[in-house]
Amino acid sequence: MLTQRIRYAPLLDKVVTADEAATHIRDGMTVATSGFTPFGYPKRVPQALADRVRRTGEPMKLTLLTGASVGDQLDGALARAGIVDRRFPYQTNDDTRKSINQGAIKYQDLHLSHVAQEVRYGFFGDIDVAIIEAVAITEDGGIVPSTSVGNSPTFVQKAKKIIVELNLNQPSGLEGMHDVYIPADPPARQPIPLVHPSDRIGTPFIPTDPEKIQAVVITDIPDAPPADAPGDAVADTMAGHLVEFLRHEVKVGRLPSNLLPLQSGVGALANAVLRGLLDAGFDDLTMYSEVVQDSVLDLIDAGILKVASASSITFSGRVLTRFLSQLDKYRDKIILRPQEISNNPEIIRRLGVIAMNTAIEVDIYGNVNSTHVLGTNVMNGIGGSGDFARNAYLTIFTTRSIAKDGNITSIVPMVSHVDHTEHDVKVIVTEQGVADLRGLCPRERARRIISCCAHPDYRDMLSDYLERAEKAGGKHTPHILDEALGWHCAFLKWKTMKPMALQPSRKTG
Amino acid sequence: MLTQRIRYAPLLDKVVTADEAATHIRDGMTVATSGFTPFGYPKRVPQALADRVRRTGEPMKLTLLTGASVGDQLDGALARAGIVDRRFPYQTNDDTRKSINQGAIKYQDLHLSHVAQEVRYGFFGDIDVAIIEAVAITEDGGIVPSTSVGNSPTFVQKAKKIIVELNLNQPSGLEGMHDVYIPADPPARQPIPLVHPSDRIGTPFIPTDPEKIQAVVITDIPDAPPADAPGDAVADTMAGHLVEFLRHEVKVGRLPSNLLPLQSGVGALANAVLRGLLDAGFDDLTMYSEVVQDSVLDLIDAGILKVASASSITFSGRVLTRFLSQLDKYRDKIILRPQEISNNPEIIRRLGVIAMNTAIEVDIYGNVNSTHVLGTNVMNGIGGSGDFARNAYLTIFTTRSIAKDGNITSIVPMVSHVDHTEHDVKVIVTEQGVADLRGLCPRERARRIISCCAHPDYRDMLSDYLERAEKAGGKHTPHILDEALGWHCAFLKWKTMKPMALQPSRKTG
Repeated sequence: MLTQRIRYAPLLDKVVTADEAATHIRDGMTVATSGFTPFGYPKRVPQALADRVRRTGEPMKLTLLTGASVGDQLDGALARAGIVDRRFPYQTNDDTRKSINQGAIKYQDLHLSHVAQEVRYGFFGDIDVAIIEAVAITEDGGIVPSTSVGNSPTFVQKAKKIIVELNLNQPSGLEGMHDVYIPADPPARQPIPLVHPSDRIGTPFIPTDPEKIQAVVITDIPDAPPADAPGDAVADTMAGHLVEFLRHEVKVGRLPSNLLPLQSGVGALANAVLRGLLDAGFDDLTMYSEVVQDSVLDLIDAGILKVASASSITFSGRVLTRFLSQLDKYRDKIILRPQEISNNPEIIRRLGVIAMNTAIEVDIYGNVNSTHVLGTNVMNGIGGSGDFARNAYLTIFTTRSIAKDGNITSIVPMVSHVDHTEHDVKVIVTEQGVADLRGLCPRERARRIISCCAHPDYRDMLSDYLERAEKAGGKHTPHILDEALGWHCAFLKWKTMKPMALQPSRKTG
Repeated sequence: MLTQRIRYAPLLDKVVTADEAATHIRDGMTVATSGFTPFGYPKRVPQALADRVRRTGEPMKLTLLTGASVGDQLDGALARAGIVDRRFPYQTNDDTRKSINQGAIKYQDLHLSHVAQEVRYGFFGDIDVAIIEAVAITEDGGIVPSTSVGNSPTFVQKAKKIIVELNLNQPSGLEGMHDVYIPADPPARQPIPLVHPSDRIGTPFIPTDPEKIQAVVITDIPDAPPADAPGDAVADTMAGHLVEFLRHEVKVGRLPSNLLPLQSGVGALANAVLRGLLDAGFDDLTMYSEVVQDSVLDLIDAGILKVASASSITFSGRVLTRFLSQLDKYRDKIILRPQEISNNPEIIRRLGVIAMNTAIEVDIYGNVNSTHVLGTNVMNGIGGSGDFARNAYLTIFTTRSIAKDGNITSIVPMVSHVDHTEHDVKVIVTEQGVADLRGLCPRERARRIISCCAHPDYRDMLSDYLERAEKAGGKHTPHILDEALGWHCAFLKWKTMKPMALQPSRKTG
């Protein structure tokens, strides 16, 4: 059986325990792994390393690069063991996040499409060890990834040593779903020959120099699917607004009747919004995104979505089982690519992707905060949202109008951190409605966002800020600078942004 | 003579006065013109329209689209006549800026590469009239642009009516310098077949339906070249830092010895920085930028720069004369393209452009403000800086460390407006030095920017802010939100950001 998974015979002799494999990792190294969302990441060697460091007390500080977020057996295990010195480019792990915000892990969150090429450009120094989860090794030593591709092709290309985690829990039927293309670097780069989401332009495996594979670890640990997102009336309302908006764009001739390739951010809200397309009357849809979530499989099963291109699957347990047990049915409908290609500006702009991402907060001028809570603590990171938002045909951000039981308004005078600028953001959707910002000057954008998207509890306060700012001075982007972040300051003091917290008498108290 | 300029004979009968041509323009219309920097813009018809409106007192409110900034005979004349209701996508005109900041003109500044496709997508509604400056009309009615291309190809394609300003002051020898390529729109768009800055992929004229040309106005008004920028020791110092940085990148193997295609923003500082390459020892350079400034012609004349691709020339009077009198010498070394191509993300990323743009202010975490003074009044606009900064091989921003006689520090705790986020900015250069931000977490970026780039007068204050913010709470991006914009507030009150203005006793006064 193993010879069907490891088809390059010399590597059969490289099968070792996770502990043995982990001996290749030493203090000060840069380790790069597979994984994009909690899918397709190595699950044994990182844990073995963490256990060893705990046992021996040896000094161990690593730079860890991944595709994007990964599962707890990697990010959590290493963070809890205090092994991670630097972390790129994205994370969603509780312990990693805590360590970052405590200053213990140095984290720079990066556009996901940038990472692979910047590794090749040498911006991150050498990659000492790559750990890649695989479903098979081909006759020539090529690595067949599992449930995500991420940055693995470039990590494999650049790493001095490679450790393969061959995961027998991942069905070998995943082979054939991947399309691995690595662009040449400037000045030799050529056009990426992809003109439709269904195009295959590379190989179904990662071309690998098998001499670099130092160890193969056999595992059977499943991915860590997110919980099944419960139904959510607010998200359904937002999905309804979005569908209505898209229908209108088709009606006035700004979108074809089968829309254009869809991109959707990761998470429960994004998943719910996509689910809204199930009974929207659209047909012959395509997706060019970074992940394939539950609702995408539903859309495929319903015959509405013809093809989905991404870098990873991100299914809940229930849907994952459905997917893994019917791989033949999905093999020509789901394509997994390197994130450098799934998130590539060249292709996103060429295809005319409709980008739908979620925001933490949005200001009245349309600037979006996707990463920071109250300007300081990072939540996850920018991920791929910037790759898509900047280059899309239409850039849409969704957010609930309020958070924390209504004590936070997601529409504020000035966001406390900017990840997507006013220049990039075309449409804002909350459960209150849709603000189409195209062609509007900042003051008009402010009025439209307040009236269409802000929660009624906060509309008067926002309008009051805008009107006083207009009277105070310049009228292009009116602001009262010593109040602009006052709403966040009020929340820090009184745990609410509600009017009482912003009353001048209390404010100076 | 005129038959050599107007080679499509039926159009000889369309030659009219500027006043007659301007009768095509009526209240409520969207007018789109040629022009990118004060080069290649229509100079007679806008003035005739402004004069008529002043004379008749007729109601007249227009939406005005251009390539980028244009000369005063267009932007200034229409702004002063109160004719402009909306203005896209960029401006640098004193009277237009004043009207925007007074709330009289509604201005949305847009990424320059986005405009043409969004016009075709229908995001700006119909284009009623296009006014295009030309040096000739071909045998088939094609328009040969003058000293810029801008958005003219798409404006010509989409406009209901076209007015040509045939400018006899512009040498007919400009013909052959342009390369006009209009991508198809999604889902039919194909890879843009440009792999080197010298590639020609289109036609040397704008394909035009001559039936749409309603009027040809003969003019002889020269472009409005900017003043010859005087020598500037501070800019020379910055250029020195930049050259040293680039040399280091070559030395460590992160850039080839002839670098990669250069992009440089518009203006005196950008021009001075490029001039620094004259005696830097580099050779065989190329440029893929949006404008060709004085120093570029110097680099070409010195044999250092092989080819410069842009959307416009922007020479001072002295250099313009040199250029226009030796067009044959420059015809194979300078290529003028639609800004949709000169600034295209696909090509910028493929070629690996080194992007060098100027900032108004930069914060300690590397966020860049390129557009707003004190968060509210717009200076010019984002222009093409975002197109390049986001997609470049290396993204560099330059700024003087202080402004207004030292009363403003360009390095602040938090910028008052974000145009380029921390995720995009790799290197900051001031006359104090270079901060290479690659691979650094926010706190490390802050320390490096303060120590390498901030003016010594402000370093202690910035370090003090950072240290207190670190103690106050979250350690990923430490901020004290009620102080973060306090430096700008201090300037608004006391016209200085210097320490005394930020003393707590005075601050609460």
